Order: sequence, then C-alpha cells, then structure tokens
Amino acid sequence: MRMTVCRKGHFNAAHRLHNPALSDQENEALFGKCNYPHYHGHNYDLIVKVTGEVDPKTGYVIDMKVLSDLIEKLVVEDFDHKNLNLDVEEFKTLIPSAEHIAYVIWHRLKPHLPETFELLIVLYETPRNFVEYAGN
Amino acid sequence: MRMTVCRKGHFNAAHRLHNPALSDQENEALFGKCNYPHYHGHNYDLIVKVTGEVDPKTGYVIDMKVLSDLIEKLVVEDFDHKNLNLDVEEFKTLIPSAEHIAYVIWHRLKPHLPETFELLIVLYETPRNFVEYAGN
Amino acid sequence: MRMTVCRKGHFNAAHRLHNPALSDQENEALFGKCNYPHYHGHNYDLIVKVTGEVDPKTGYVIDMKVLSDLIEKLVVEDFDHKNLNLDVEEFKTLIPSAEHIAYVIWHRLKPHLPETFELLIVLYETPRNFVEYAGN
Amino acid sequence: MRMTVCRKGHFNAAHRLHNPALSDQENEALFGKCNYPHYHGHNYDLIVKVTGEVDPKTGYVIDMKVLSDLIEKLVVEDFDHKNLNLDVEEFKTLIPSAEHIAYVIWHRLKPHLPETFELLIVLYETPRNFVEYAGN
Amino acid sequence: MRMTVCRKGHFNAAHRLHNPALSDQENEALFGKCNYPHYHGHNYDLIVKVTGEVDPKTGYVIDMKVLSDLIEKLVVEDFDHKNLNLDVEEFKTLIPSAEHIAYVIWHRLKPHLPETFELLIVLYETPRNFVEYAGN
Amino acid sequence: MRMTVCRKGHFNAAHRLHNPALSDQENEALFGKCNYPHYHGHNYDLIVKVTGEVDPKTGYVIDMKVLSDLIEKLVVEDFDHKNLNLDVEEFKTLIPSAEHIAYVIWHRLKPHLPETFELLIVLYETPRNFVEYAGN
Repeated sequence: MRMTVCRKGHFNAAHRLHNPALSDQENEALFGKCNYPHYHGHNYDLIVKVTGEVDPKTGYVIDMKVLSDLIEKLVVEDFDHKNLNLDVEEFKTLIPSAEHIAYVIWHRLKPHLPETFELLIVLYETPRNFVEYAGN
Repeated sequence: MRMTVCRKGHFNAAHRLHNPALSDQENEALFGKCNYPHYHGHNYDLIVKVTGEVDPKTGYVIDMKVLSDLIEKLVVEDFDHKNLNLDVEEFKTLIPSAEHIAYVIWHRLKPHLPETFELLIVLYETPRNFVEYAGN
Repeated sequence: MRMTVCRKGHFNAAHRLHNPALSDQENEALFGKCNYPHYHGHNYDLIVKVTGEVDPKTGYVIDMKVLSDLIEKLVVEDFDHKNLNLDVEEFKTLIPSAEHIAYVIWHRLKPHLPETFELLIVLYETPRNFVEYAGN
Repeated sequence: MRMTVCRKGHFNAAHRLHNPALSDQENEALFGKCNYPHYHGHNYDLIVKVTGEVDPKTGYVIDMKVLSDLIEKLVVEDFDHKNLNLDVEEFKTLIPSAEHIAYVIWHRLKPHLPETFELLIVLYETPRNFVEYAGN
Repeated sequence: MRMTVCRKGHFNAAHRLHNPALSDQENEALFGKCNYPHYHGHNYDLIVKVTGEVDPKTGYVIDMKVLSDLIEKLVVEDFDHKNLNLDVEEFKTLIPSAEHIAYVIWHRLKPHLPETFELLIVLYETPRNFVEYAGN
Repeated sequence: MRMTVCRKGHFNAAHRLHNPALSDQENEALFGKCNYPHYHGHNYDLIVKVTGEVDPKTGYVIDMKVLSDLIEKLVVEDFDHKNLNLDVEEFKTLIPSAEHIAYVIWHRLKPHLPETFELLIVLYETPRNFVEYAGN
C-alpha cells in the first residue's frame, strides 16, 4: 500500500528578485515590480507531499506530527517573518523566485526523510501563482 | 483524447486511531490525542479522480451525475454522520487513518468503473492534512 | 478609531444532538442523522471578532497573539479532539448544536476581554452551515 | 532543475451541452439539465501548469507575466462573458463539455510555449467538478 | 439567546444585463461586456442568514434541513441551469443584476419564515463580486 | 432598495511594526517577530463594502467596474509590491498594523464615493487575521 501524505504549512516573508550579475536596467526589465529595491512580501503557502509505504502498525506513511515538526524546524522557523534575500543563507547566492524557494525547501527536507520516500513541494507565492518541484 | 475528471464529495464522521494489538500506553504514545477514547471527528473532503478516454458522442469521460451517484451510494451513505470505527465494516480490522480511509474508498469504487479507467483518491482529513492513493 | 479585529481558530470534535427530556423516537424525528447514537464529528472553524478602540501606541485593538492564546487556552484545549457531549462541562446540560457551541464560546471568552469590547462569535460546523452570536 | 509553474485564470461564460447528431429526447436523456435550450452558465476557473527547466539567470521556468498574458490573449479574451456554443469557433463542431473546453485551451496554448515544455490544463466548471488534460 | 444561522446554496445560470427602455448604444455603454447579447453565465454562491431566538428544546434557531429545503424549493429549482432573463418570472421586468437577484431571493424566502425572524441574503456573482441585502 | 455591494482586491507588500517613540527593547517586547528590522511581508486581501440605494435604471448600487477602478487607482497602485513603511506616505507617521492600513484605505476611498454611501473595509493580513473598519 504505497500512498502520498500531504501537509500544509505557511510563512510570511519579504523578498525581492534581483540578479547581481546584471545592471539595474536589465534587472528592472527582467523582473518588473518584483525587482523593487525596498522589498515587497507574500504569505507563502506550502504543501509538502511525501510518498511511501503505509506502516500497518499505525496506518501511517509518516506521522503528520513528525512531518509538521520537520516543516516547522527546517523551513518555517528560518523563513517566517524574515527577509528571504537578507536572512536566509541559500538566497545569498540564489534569486528567491518561487522556483528557487521550492528547490531550497526540497533540499532542506529530503535528507530528513527515509531514503525510499519521494518528496514533492508545492509552493504558492500568491493564490494565483504557484510552483511544484519533485527533485528533478 | 485521454483525460481526468474529478468530483468532490464530503462526509462528516467520528473516528479514533487505536491498534488493538498494542497496549494503551503504546497506543497513546503512537497516536497522541487521535487515540482519545471517546472519539473525535472531522469533515472529510473527498476528491475522486477518474482517468479515461473521452466519448465523442457526449464529450464526457464519465457522466458526472453517474460518478457523483457512485460516490454517494458507495461512500457517503455508509460513512456520513457515522462512527467509522464502530459502523463501517472495513474499519473493524483496519485502523481508520486517512491513509486507510482512502484505501477503502478506492477499493469500494474501482470495481464499479470501466476496467481501463484509472482511479485516484484524494482525502482531506482537515484542510491542512490530506492523502492521495492511486491503487498501488 | 473603533475597529473590529478577527482571528480564526479551529477544532475537530465528535458530537451528537440528543435531548434527554424526549423519547428516542422524538429525538430521531427532531435531529435525524445528527442524533445517531455512536456520534459523528466535524472540523469546526471558528472566527472570533473583537470590537474596540485602537491603541495609538501599538496600532492594535488587541494583540493578535493575546487573542489567539485566549482562543487556544479557553476553547481549543478543551474542545479539540474531544467528544463535546461527554467531555465538555457545559454540554452535559446543553445540546451541542452549533448555536449552543457558539454561545458557550462567547461566554468563555467575554470575561477575559476588556469590558468595553464587543464580542462576536462565528462558528462553522461545515463549510455550508454556520452561526453567528453577539451575546444577545 | 526541472519544475512546474502554475497560473490561475478564470472566465464567466454561458454554454449548453447538445449533440446535433442526436434527437431532442436523446439529448435530454444524455445531458439532463445541462441540455436546457436557453443556456446556463459558469464561472470557469482555470489552472495552467507548465513544466520546464529553470533558467538560472532569472530563477524562472517562464515569466508569470508572459504566461498570464498568453492565457489572457488566447483564452480569456475569447471566452469571457461569451456564449461558448455560439461565439467560440471550436465549439461549433465540438460539444462544450468541461473535457472539450480543456482540450481546446491546451491546443490554443501549446504552440506558444517552448517545444520542450509540458503543458497540463486543469479546468473547474464548478468548485466540485473539474477536469485535467495533459495533451494525451 | 438570539442568534444568526447561515446556510450556503448555489446555482449555475446564464444572464445578461439589458435595460429595454434604453437604446443598444446606451446599454452597451452602461453594462459593457455584461450586456453581450448571447448571454454569459456564473456559478452563483448564496448565503442565507436567518436571525431569531434559539429554541431550547432543539438548540436550533431553525432546523438547517428546513432552511436548506426552502432554499432548494424556492430558489435553486427555479434558477439552477436556467437563463435568468428568459426563464425566471421576476426578471421579465427587472434587470438581473446581482443586486436584483438578491432582492428577488429575499422576497421569495421571507414569507416562509416566522415573522419575527430577520433575513439577510449574501449573493456572490463571482468570488470577487458580491452583494448583501437585508430587506431595506 | 438599499443594499451593500462588495468587491475584493489584493496587494502584496512588505512591512514592519515599529514605534519610533519607544526603545528597541520595548518595540521587540510589544511587536515580537513583527518588529523584525529587515521587514517581512504579506498577501493582503481587501474587501470594500459600499452601501447605498439601487439605481433602477441599472440595477446597480455602483458599477463594479467603477468601484474596482477606484480600488486599483487609490490603493493597489500605491501599495502593491511596495514597502508600506518606506513608500506609503501615511505610514511615515502611522504604524502599518492591519488596523491602520484599513483606516488609511477607508480615508482614501470615502471622498470618492457619493456622500450618502456607507463604506466598510475588511482587510486580511493573513487568512487567519483580519480587521473590519466602518469609519467610526
């Protein structure tokens, strides 16, 4: 019995899209109002999807409390009410687009899950814009 | 033209997570407040996803009314406003975790669909916790 | 500057509608499947609305953290993952209809708020059924 | 870094399900109230999912503004506040079921995306009925 | 104990905004794309709010089943999968704007409720546009 | 026929709660993580509710297009993808709490509506925290 269990989380953060290898004009042309220098922000909604075998002893793939604590400790504590560009290590060298944020979250969580588990990250930057990353 | 059609349903039920093969202490350690003896409950939201060929005569994979009636007759009538542990046959020998409820729903619906159709069950136990089961 | 601040909370609980002063037949006629003896359950969503003056020092009517802690301590801790009929003092003598649950929550919270504040409780039993109570 | 980016759109339209090759009785038997001659309507919600490589220069698979403009120009302008049966070219020969609408949207968008990109259309006819089409 | 109970309903309908006392140009200037002659449509979401005294025998202001049946019989049966302009009596002389639809629903429901009850109608034409009518 | 029409809008912004009349320790004690110096951000959801007489010529209290353009021009253009503390005039002397943001929006919109109209602002800072302001 192989199944996917999904847990939602969220964090509120400031960010700005800016590629330091490009000129200010190129940045503004590429990123528009997302490049605005004083930062703007979002309520990010996160869905973490973990696929594995159901343990017959518990009826669980993974205890939701365990999954929820991993999300809290490895993502929310570091990202929530922060400035992603200035305060999160990975975004010192990576533009904090929704794509890259999903990538960073995947790489933070994966080593803490059993190796046979698959992991998919869904990240909503706004209710109308979101990304999905499966580690490919 | 192969496509997936999806129909939402829901039911409100009481349940409790408890493994009779284990001691009370082990059950409490494993399941925490979900093991609480007097039961608690949820508004379960269900999405049934059926994948098959579109019939050019109707433009349908399956008539939503037919799919909705199957969900009503095979799932909702038996689960809604019930106690899953005490009133649903399958959970007399299976812990009613979200994973197992999705598994039971999949097995109730699959034989009533054309054999070439694929079936995926999404079951929300709360808006933040849900599972997906494709029959694997 | 008089304003209303609103905080959402939720709890998952089992309940049953039953009036012990009536016969079983009368109960079933009155309450239908909500009278079912083994209990059923809901994910209750709660909105607590507090109206008062904005404090110019903070820009707050009330600190959301304070309001959220009151909801947690006075409502969620006692109601979540519980059986309302069997485990919550007030429902030993009061049928746990959505109306009565909102009434009980209002009376639990009101004494802990400044006297000049108005309080409104919105309680969703399901996404389609909800009640509003302002203490009248 | 291969990833899926998703953008929501919506349009409000009238439609009717009717197969001109069949008699009125057959149509009514097949389509029920969806066959009603004076049309009815929906707020269609659309999710366009595009899968491709992330461009390290921008951190984007595709600029959401570009994707959103494609949806606007190729779908919404033509479908919104219209009668799908009478006003949209493709539905002069294709019954405007949710399945066929998703199929038409996929074929309108695909040629405007880089060839290596995968495209998935999710179309909600109502919050409880939706379809998914990946071009198969 | 005076309280408000709320019940959601919905219907899918076609409509068009057009004032027959005005010229075509005036209609188009006033109503824009909502005046489009072949109709367009919406998934209308409805919230019916009824305020009255709680009956201590049941813990109910009104049985939700009774309220839901009134909505079904007096509104949904007549409006759902219909063309509001052509098929609903009241809109033969009244432009079917969201405001007027709420007005019509209020007047259909009010006589069927106890005279001391207050009634408020909330009608969503889209998730972003809605109206509230209290019978004033 | 007096009625309320409601229109949703949204904007994404960075902000920080900080009272310059207080010490850093007092600010941190008062505002906790909302005082964080590098800013954080939110997807603010806004509901503007306008109450007035229905014009029988149009069936409208106010044309939603007019209301939506006012929200765009007077609020969204100035607040969206901005830093509220640094870029919005009013918050140079007012802490940008949800309460104060609602207050500012009310005062920006009110003079542009007919004088007999009532105005209510609902502002969601997160899906669980929101405020309502009616101009009192």
